[in-house]
Amino acid sequence: MSVLATPIDPTSAAFLLTENRNMPMHVGGLQLFKKPEGAGRNYVREMFEQMRDANEVSPLFLKHPHRSVRTGAQLVWKPDEQFDIDHHLRHSALPKPGRVRELLELSSRLHSTRMAWERPLWEAHVIEGLRDGRVALYTKIHHSLVDGISAMRLMASTLSTDPEQRDMPPPWAYRASSRKPAPSQTNLSELPMTALRSALGLTAEAAGMPAALVKTLTKSVRNETSALSLHAPHTILNQPITGSRRFAAQDWPVERLRLIGKATGTTINDVVLAMCAGAMRTYLLELDALPEAPLVAMVPVGLNAKQSHIASAEGGNAVGAVMVRLATDLADPARRLSAIHRSMKDGKESLSSMTPTQILAMSAIGQAPAILTPMLRMSGIVRPPYNLIISNVPGPRSTHFWNGAQLVGHYPLSIPINGMALNITCTSYDGKMGFGLTGCRRTVPHLQRLLTHLDDEVKALEKAAGI
Amino acid sequence: MSVLATPIDPTSAAFLLTENRNMPMHVGGLQLFKKPEGAGRNYVREMFEQMRDANEVSPLFLKHPHRSVRTGAQLVWKPDEQFDIDHHLRHSALPKPGRVRELLELSSRLHSTRMAWERPLWEAHVIEGLRDGRVALYTKIHHSLVDGISAMRLMASTLSTDPEQRDMPPPWAYRASSRKPAPSQTNLSELPMTALRSALGLTAEAAGMPAALVKTLTKSVRNETSALSLHAPHTILNQPITGSRRFAAQDWPVERLRLIGKATGTTINDVVLAMCAGAMRTYLLELDALPEAPLVAMVPVGLNAKQSHIASAEGGNAVGAVMVRLATDLADPARRLSAIHRSMKDGKESLSSMTPTQILAMSAIGQAPAILTPMLRMSGIVRPPYNLIISNVPGPRSTHFWNGAQLVGHYPLSIPINGMALNITCTSYDGKMGFGLTGCRRTVPHLQRLLTHLDDEVKALEKAAGI
Repeated sequence: MSVLATPIDPTSAAFLLTENRNMPMHVGGLQLFKKPEGAGRNYVREMFEQMRDANEVSPLFLKHPHRSVRTGAQLVWKPDEQFDIDHHLRHSALPKPGRVRELLELSSRLHSTRMAWERPLWEAHVIEGLRDGRVALYTKIHHSLVDGISAMRLMASTLSTDPEQRDMPPPWAYRASSRKPAPSQTNLSELPMTALRSALGLTAEAAGMPAALVKTLTKSVRNETSALSLHAPHTILNQPITGSRRFAAQDWPVERLRLIGKATGTTINDVVLAMCAGAMRTYLLELDALPEAPLVAMVPVGLNAKQSHIASAEGGNAVGAVMVRLATDLADPARRLSAIHRSMKDGKESLSSMTPTQILAMSAIGQAPAILTPMLRMSGIVRPPYNLIISNVPGPRSTHFWNGAQLVGHYPLSIPINGMALNITCTSYDGKMGFGLTGCRRTVPHLQRLLTHLDDEVKALEKAAGI
Repeated sequence: MSVLATPIDPTSAAFLLTENRNMPMHVGGLQLFKKPEGAGRNYVREMFEQMRDANEVSPLFLKHPHRSVRTGAQLVWKPDEQFDIDHHLRHSALPKPGRVRELLELSSRLHSTRMAWERPLWEAHVIEGLRDGRVALYTKIHHSLVDGISAMRLMASTLSTDPEQRDMPPPWAYRASSRKPAPSQTNLSELPMTALRSALGLTAEAAGMPAALVKTLTKSVRNETSALSLHAPHTILNQPITGSRRFAAQDWPVERLRLIGKATGTTINDVVLAMCAGAMRTYLLELDALPEAPLVAMVPVGLNAKQSHIASAEGGNAVGAVMVRLATDLADPARRLSAIHRSMKDGKESLSSMTPTQILAMSAIGQAPAILTPMLRMSGIVRPPYNLIISNVPGPRSTHFWNGAQLVGHYPLSIPINGMALNITCTSYDGKMGFGLTGCRRTVPHLQRLLTHLDDEVKALEKAAGI
């Protein structure tokens, strides 16, 4: 039996090898769809069957990691010769009463389970039973295949702005466009890893990359003028985690956040961070666990080519990471927002004075926290320089559809790791800002309370801004 | 961190080590319950919560296999120090229209998935959404923890004949009775493995057991006077399998089978075998895959202590295995039943002339087919001496309840292996004979058709018997 095995690049291999029961390394997405007008009672089953019967599956979704004596104990990708779509795509239903609560419980459970290497590392669940009639789609894909942002783009790329369009394939289908990517639109699922590797001039040795990153990173960390801060206080978020997950999600109108920003001279992103800051403050106060020093968030930011000094052949943007003080020591929402705005501005400025390699190294913290944390520790940096990661990924602005079903909500599920038990990822879509909170259920108790606190914080910020 | 590790006995270790993606080594059970009178709309959730909140979990359900450098690469049981009941017990729902078909699809899917060694090897799913209002419970436990019969008994042991009884624990709860088993009722979950090992005088070496078994077995196989037959024809069932499963289940009144037996001078077990034989004949004919020679089934049978020559300290029964010719070459149902009756009788007679060790070795074929098949091959026996396994396990005769919910159906899910793609296990309960058919979905196409064929066969046998 001959199989076509291809080598796994070092970064992907690192995601596979650092994974364990407590730290599954997959990202997820929860999408909510509104059935089209005139949908019959079998609509969800038909949607499921249409996805299942997609003609051809893209190679990315057919390969699985493999290591054996025959491969010289090296980790390789191998096509699954017994690929079974029924293992990957599933039709599920919510128990009664079918509230969003039951959906979040199911998503938490699905996101907790690690995927076995013996099959391609992805799953999609078409979920019916929401009492408001909406249909949910939970998708899960291993970080060794795509990073979180690319996964979200991959999901979005199969949608259309045309409500009348039909015969649209699911995200895992082999599409003509994926055969030969246009120069301006490289293969999203491969870009970040390879770009990072080539930018750092790394060889194919797995050990090489983290070492090079850590060298750059420790330099930056020890340089007080850099965008990194070493003064993140210890919190309950920064301890070893278990394999139990809790996911909570909700959205707020972007317009409300925009008006707050306008009235206070801040950005929508500042308002998102202030919401998280206020919610974290209330949450930790309730648990009697708020540290005196303010929490520090690691916030990935996009930089245009000029700012980042990167002469990019593709002319694209680079991503850096700013350490933002969340001002959780301040009781007043308006002062918190203002402090966050300043901290973000400072961070971005120092970031633009960094070298391309430094920026890429920073960016890699977000890409590979699980790999970098132990390496940092070996370099004498005992505590990560931030308490949690807050990402804000812009999504499509217009209304999108999949075969006539309107996408009405989109929430990302991310990866908590040891020492970083909570991850907040936001994504905007069609005038709404969707918040996805993914945490270790044991380390971050009652995580869902953060949704109420986020809502209270929007109101408090509106009041403070005089709206 | 110190953990209490205990050695894994060789048979259990063999089940763990022979397992792969195509051959998960867990048994399952599907139980159907009728809600008690006056059950509220939250009944299923309350049932789930009552199971989830069971105070203490039995050690059997807390341990997981572990192997590391520290254990000298030896496989040991380790208690799960981060045991999370939410990973093991799940509340699910069926998609619409909530027929038995959707339940069997979900059971097939749940039964397909291999359990990761990093957690205790069991799952239980409380399933709502059947349109007739019944509640289903699918349970799954690894063969290294209990064999199939013990698993079914374990499930039954938590039930009561009293519909008024409440505060009943789930099967995995630590119960007073399991602390100190009565002499007449040894710990069911431990008995078969240890009894087998001690009866064969085996040491703790993993390699020792299969070798000893094979020696006995090959002797029996080559002795034409034994209960084994070498003349099983090749069928589509006897080829390598994949990891996809299809489960089908249905029950028929025991009274119907009893009347057929009474009218034809055969046993209920003969009638069960004749049903399977007729159904297999029709099924294989439809696929144009019926061999000329009759199929041979391996049928485990109970023998009392006198028959089996075993001086059992516990006074219990021994289990042997008979090779039964299913007479699938005969078109007439009455002649088939009669031939099966004779074949079963001959097999039982030659079995009672076997030595205790031979009987235990036979019994071990059912226990450990995946282990024995390659060993047989190494001994020059290239083809297993039977085409499929048909077990008939007696269950409780009276109506049973769990906290007031009446058990109305009970169907076993078994383990297909390479070369043995279909397993039929029947169990009687409360006047019904439940058939559970577990197969590889790819090797045994349209497995669910066998249910129709089984039903047709009961009617044909009734007609032939003049009922």
